[in-house]
Amino acid sequence: MTLAPQTVTAAAAGTLLHPFDDALVLEPAGEHRFLGRTTPAYWNMIGPFGGITAATLLQAALQHPERLGDPLALTVNFAGPIAEGPFEIEARPTRTNRSTQHWQIELRQRDAVATTATAVFSLRRETWSCGEAVRPEAPAADEVPAMAGFAPVRWLKSYDMRPFRGARPTTEPGTEHPDSLTQFWLRDEPARTPDFPAMAAWCDSFYPRIFLKRAGFVPAGTVSLTTYFHADAATLAALGDSHVLCSAQAQVFRQGFFDQSAQVWSAGGELLATSHQIVYYKE
Amino acid sequence: MTLAPQTVTAAAAGTLLHPFDDALVLEPAGEHRFLGRTTPAYWNMIGPFGGITAATLLQAALQHPERLGDPLALTVNFAGPIAEGPFEIEARPTRTNRSTQHWQIELRQRDAVATTATAVFSLRRETWSCGEAVRPEAPAADEVPAMAGFAPVRWLKSYDMRPFRGARPTTEPGTEHPDSLTQFWLRDEPARTPDFPAMAAWCDSFYPRIFLKRAGFVPAGTVSLTTYFHADAATLAALGDSHVLCSAQAQVFRQGFFDQSAQVWSAGGELLATSHQIVYYKE
Repeated sequence: MTLAPQTVTAAAAGTLLHPFDDALVLEPAGEHRFLGRTTPAYWNMIGPFGGITAATLLQAALQHPERLGDPLALTVNFAGPIAEGPFEIEARPTRTNRSTQHWQIELRQRDAVATTATAVFSLRRETWSCGEAVRPEAPAADEVPAMAGFAPVRWLKSYDMRPFRGARPTTEPGTEHPDSLTQFWLRDEPARTPDFPAMAAWCDSFYPRIFLKRAGFVPAGTVSLTTYFHADAATLAALGDSHVLCSAQAQVFRQGFFDQSAQVWSAGGELLATSHQIVYYKE
Repeated sequence: MTLAPQTVTAAAAGTLLHPFDDALVLEPAGEHRFLGRTTPAYWNMIGPFGGITAATLLQAALQHPERLGDPLALTVNFAGPIAEGPFEIEARPTRTNRSTQHWQIELRQRDAVATTATAVFSLRRETWSCGEAVRPEAPAADEVPAMAGFAPVRWLKSYDMRPFRGARPTTEPGTEHPDSLTQFWLRDEPARTPDFPAMAAWCDSFYPRIFLKRAGFVPAGTVSLTTYFHADAATLAALGDSHVLCSAQAQVFRQGFFDQSAQVWSAGGELLATSHQIVYYKE
């Protein structure tokens, strides 16, 4: 474990934080405002891994003094690039009801809006419950080797990813793969007990489905990402350092955009989160 | 076809508008601001049908003078109730790129935020395309009778809905239905050539999945709704007055919230839109 060299906040200085917690350090900077910065551990090709941006926007609402309840829904719109260095987040509760709270969140760099988000927080209570979807069949996590990495990007080293289906295309480049389904076991690297920001990041940990479907790399990037959190904080904490099962597939690729629907399961078969995104591609 | 009695805008007065177009009438009211009002044709139990609210928020961005391109993604958060009568919408472009534009939209009534939304618009271009998901098997629309209505709410009369699966529960009240899958043919009533607002509304036209799964009515309402538009304006216009095939199912019901994933298909097998929502229930 290494500490990020860029540290603009006093809170992080001198403490041995997990790289994920380090990336999420936000310094309060006035009403609804927080200061953060990118860290090398979650760097992607030309900007931060989208999942860490989603997690950081959520974190701003989580540590806001007016927060009510826990995350239920999060939509993140990737409006423009984020450069290496500091950024500002404004997280504003737009309406607080008895058991739900609505958030509007914006990440700015040098006065330009780079990312926007909305979130819904809620108080959960026990009710009749039912898991209609069924966990995919999978070999045990410790029987699947960790993947060396499909692409040479830094953030992948911050995850222990063990794909057992759709790790990479098996057809010739430029041909059509039978499906766009990827499934892997996942946990943070180094291991970290998950929370809502971790889940927000995990939901964006799949490489773009078109890489698999078309058997090759093309320019692609998430435009908008929506995650629903089905597990409460206690359920996430109880996962400890176990792996979760992640599954993602596209339904349609058309006119420069494709969708992706993802599930995150506990080994025991609980559906912890579902997530959807629309992704730009050039082809 | 009847005209809505409530008409606060000059634009609608005296013209014979389709009830859907009438509901979408927005009067510009200064920079980024529009005035609208609820109409009886899309009234639900205690407020407007969520789909008409989604469509109206989208309409504000569509008729904004700075608009670029067509809708790609729309997320609507139902933050509080909307009362019968006038409302104000603020639709603000937060970032405009070369081929995408990001929107933040808010509906207020009497100074309270009732609904928030974000939208992404884009210029589409022809690329390699591929429909991975396959249209569900279905009898032809003209072989399926229109449903008299599962619930006595006005907005259902504004649709010609022809369910062929999951129209209503077939098990005893309070027991668990085998699945939460509903499929129907749908078009506006009276028929209307669809556009992006129509699609936004169609994606919310399913009754809450828990009514089917638990075989009975419980308090339930959409909290957050995200729709991805996969078909361009020309594809939608070409549908004319044909029915579209709609399919929706939940994955998990837990602690007062369940999810729903929906698809809207052309009869010819094109996936026109996919949509996801998280729904509150009390049980």
